[in-house]
Amino acid sequence: MQVKLIHHTPLWVAAKAIRKCWASEGNSDTVNTNDDIGASDRALIHRVGCKLKHASTLEHLNYSFDIDGISRACLQELARHRHASLSVKSTRYTLKELRKMSANEEDFLVQTGNSYIDSANRLQLKTLKWALQDNVSNDVVKYMLPEAYKTSLVWTINMRSLQNFLMLRTSSAALPEIRELAWEIVAEMPEEHMYLLTESLI
Amino acid sequence: MQVKLIHHTPLWVAAKAIRKCWASEGNSDTVNTNDDIGASDRALIHRVGCKLKHASTLEHLNYSFDIDGISRACLQELARHRHASLSVKSTRYTLKELRKMSANEEDFLVQTGNSYIDSANRLQLKTLKWALQDNVSNDVVKYMLPEAYKTSLVWTINMRSLQNFLMLRTSSAALPEIRELAWEIVAEMPEEHMYLLTESLI
Amino acid sequence: MQVKLIHHTPLWVAAKAIRKCWASEGNSDTVNTNDDIGASDRALIHRVGCKLKHASTLEHLNYSFDIDGISRACLQELARHRHASLSVKSTRYTLKELRKMSANEEDFLVQTGNSYIDSANRLQLKTLKWALQDNVSNDVVKYMLPEAYKTSLVWTINMRSLQNFLMLRTSSAALPEIRELAWEIVAEMPEEHMYLLTESLI
Amino acid sequence: MQVKLIHHTPLWVAAKAIRKCWASEGNSDTVNTNDDIGASDRALIHRVGCKLKHASTLEHLNYSFDIDGISRACLQELARHRHASLSVKSTRYTLKELRKMSANEEDFLVQTGNSYIDSANRLQLKTLKWALQDNVSNDVVKYMLPEAYKTSLVWTINMRSLQNFLMLRTSSAALPEIRELAWEIVAEMPEEHMYLLTESLI
Repeated sequence: MQVKLIHHTPLWVAAKAIRKCWASEGNSDTVNTNDDIGASDRALIHRVGCKLKHASTLEHLNYSFDIDGISRACLQELARHRHASLSVKSTRYTLKELRKMSANEEDFLVQTGNSYIDSANRLQLKTLKWALQDNVSNDVVKYMLPEAYKTSLVWTINMRSLQNFLMLRTSSAALPEIRELAWEIVAEMPEEHMYLLTESLI
Repeated sequence: MQVKLIHHTPLWVAAKAIRKCWASEGNSDTVNTNDDIGASDRALIHRVGCKLKHASTLEHLNYSFDIDGISRACLQELARHRHASLSVKSTRYTLKELRKMSANEEDFLVQTGNSYIDSANRLQLKTLKWALQDNVSNDVVKYMLPEAYKTSLVWTINMRSLQNFLMLRTSSAALPEIRELAWEIVAEMPEEHMYLLTESLI
Repeated sequence: MQVKLIHHTPLWVAAKAIRKCWASEGNSDTVNTNDDIGASDRALIHRVGCKLKHASTLEHLNYSFDIDGISRACLQELARHRHASLSVKSTRYTLKELRKMSANEEDFLVQTGNSYIDSANRLQLKTLKWALQDNVSNDVVKYMLPEAYKTSLVWTINMRSLQNFLMLRTSSAALPEIRELAWEIVAEMPEEHMYLLTESLI
Repeated sequence: MQVKLIHHTPLWVAAKAIRKCWASEGNSDTVNTNDDIGASDRALIHRVGCKLKHASTLEHLNYSFDIDGISRACLQELARHRHASLSVKSTRYTLKELRKMSANEEDFLVQTGNSYIDSANRLQLKTLKWALQDNVSNDVVKYMLPEAYKTSLVWTINMRSLQNFLMLRTSSAALPEIRELAWEIVAEMPEEHMYLLTESLI
């Protein structure tokens, strides 16, 4: 899988939001408003949003990820996190990509490492390709897709929901693939935002 | 698929909520508070919730459905309706049901009507059964599941979200299976609630 | 203030939802489906929804309250709980009730117990009444309302959000009035649902 | 009132999200990823998000506003838009600002233009100041606040919810102050984002 953070809100937006609550804007030590933030504002976000559990202040921080090559099995779990926005590659509209003779089944499948299962999935996809070449409609053919079939999406989530997602999905009880996704997301986070996540990682 | 409405809020709750807004409780013509509602209260819900688009008043009405035998493909679409609560049969915990020698693959698969595809799916499930009998873990085996694999869930949704769901999913542009699900849901609705749905059906 | 639970989902709906996840419907010990629930199903909801933090299963349980006589100050705080549906008495449409000569200002105000403040509020309301009698529009007059002004609403919330609400609002750090509201809500809960709240009360 | 857009997501994020659905990334004509976007990508967002009503693709666009000087009456209405994040100046913690002898009551009040009402509000605030100087606690004193009392907040909302907000609140049926707020928000929108709002303005 490939995960890429494509956009995020700078930290100072959350600091500004928190200072509204106490009318303490005068104490802000953020001088300009790029991605820089003063040390005091920085500490404030963690204290209020994480320690004092005034978690709604973390909702001002949004993160958009470009996620490629996760399985439809993993997508089933990802989609249960309802406080996020996801735009997902539609199998209804894109299955034709498998129709090309040059299409290599393996490229479209998440590998489980179990050769018996991986080859059964390749065979299923090859069978599916024949159905497409026989002009069976996407809406019927899609019922053959093994859950290992790769998908991709743009996923936007705020810091409050992200903490909840990581808390649940970095756990060793999670499905290994979504656990890997969770850690890839962590790896993509801007370094200066990481301190808001430490309590959510298992 | 089987769809069964297992619980719903009586209409008078929405009427009571609407009368709060205008302090017109005195005009209510609902005499008792079972599933009965007066004609004036009944008309009020439609006028305010549907015509005047004060749609939040419809959120007091919740409907819980027991849904069986839809495909995992259909579940992918259903799960995109984020203003609903869903408790879904977990493949991670229940795949063992396929392991039994007596398990008939066909019972676990939504039939597409295309015999080529349906038999490929049966074969895939048989292969999957062998992997289970070989003690491959559910978390690996599940990657072989074809999207035709049947699932079941309890789904709770309020009237406002339900209207949106039906508007989008009774359309002829919808995936046929979720369209069928939408109409099965409509068929399960209490008759006296149906008048709130007419503008949402295509 | 008066709080009255006007409708709620029976517990067995949540048990049915949980048993879907593990396909353990066969183990249910609920015999009929009124408000009764078997001991095993009952324990299951607490174990899965509260202990195992599979909190979405608690969302199937909805509670509708008829709340009267809280202040607009309290409403400001209540409205921040965004996972709930609220239909509130509109000052824009109902201020005329103050216009009647017989209207007793005191009946419209939450008493703080501080006589200086309570009498200032009564005077403000009397002044407001004169403005209404002088035909100033509700949309202008409403700017005079002291936050002690009483309002009422129908409030529907699911068990998951209710736990969060009570956790935050039964705390001694909460505004005393919303704390009182939180405890009134607890007092109205069906006795057999109370065991789901114990960890949320402070 | 003062409204200032302090941060927003660039349009290309939504275009990238939409192109995921159809796997049409190759057709993107956005060359770099600052606030620039190609003409084709730009048209795509409007076509899919607004015309085709695939509105979830608009949720990737978030807007954070710094809002100052609206009344608590207006805040009551703003807070009903539950698909938004708001961090509001807390009267519980900031009322002390009124205690200073130099505090000019007028600066803390939205003016209605009706001199009778505006002077009653000033008097109420002066009375409130005396209570503060007499060491009555903020939690009691706040019950005296007239709804004209000014507040401020940071408000983050996505394009989908913003369209709904503007549809309802630019209407002539809306409370004049929230209507003014709606138009101030429109005035602060980046010019190149305005084309997504035209159908929502009345």
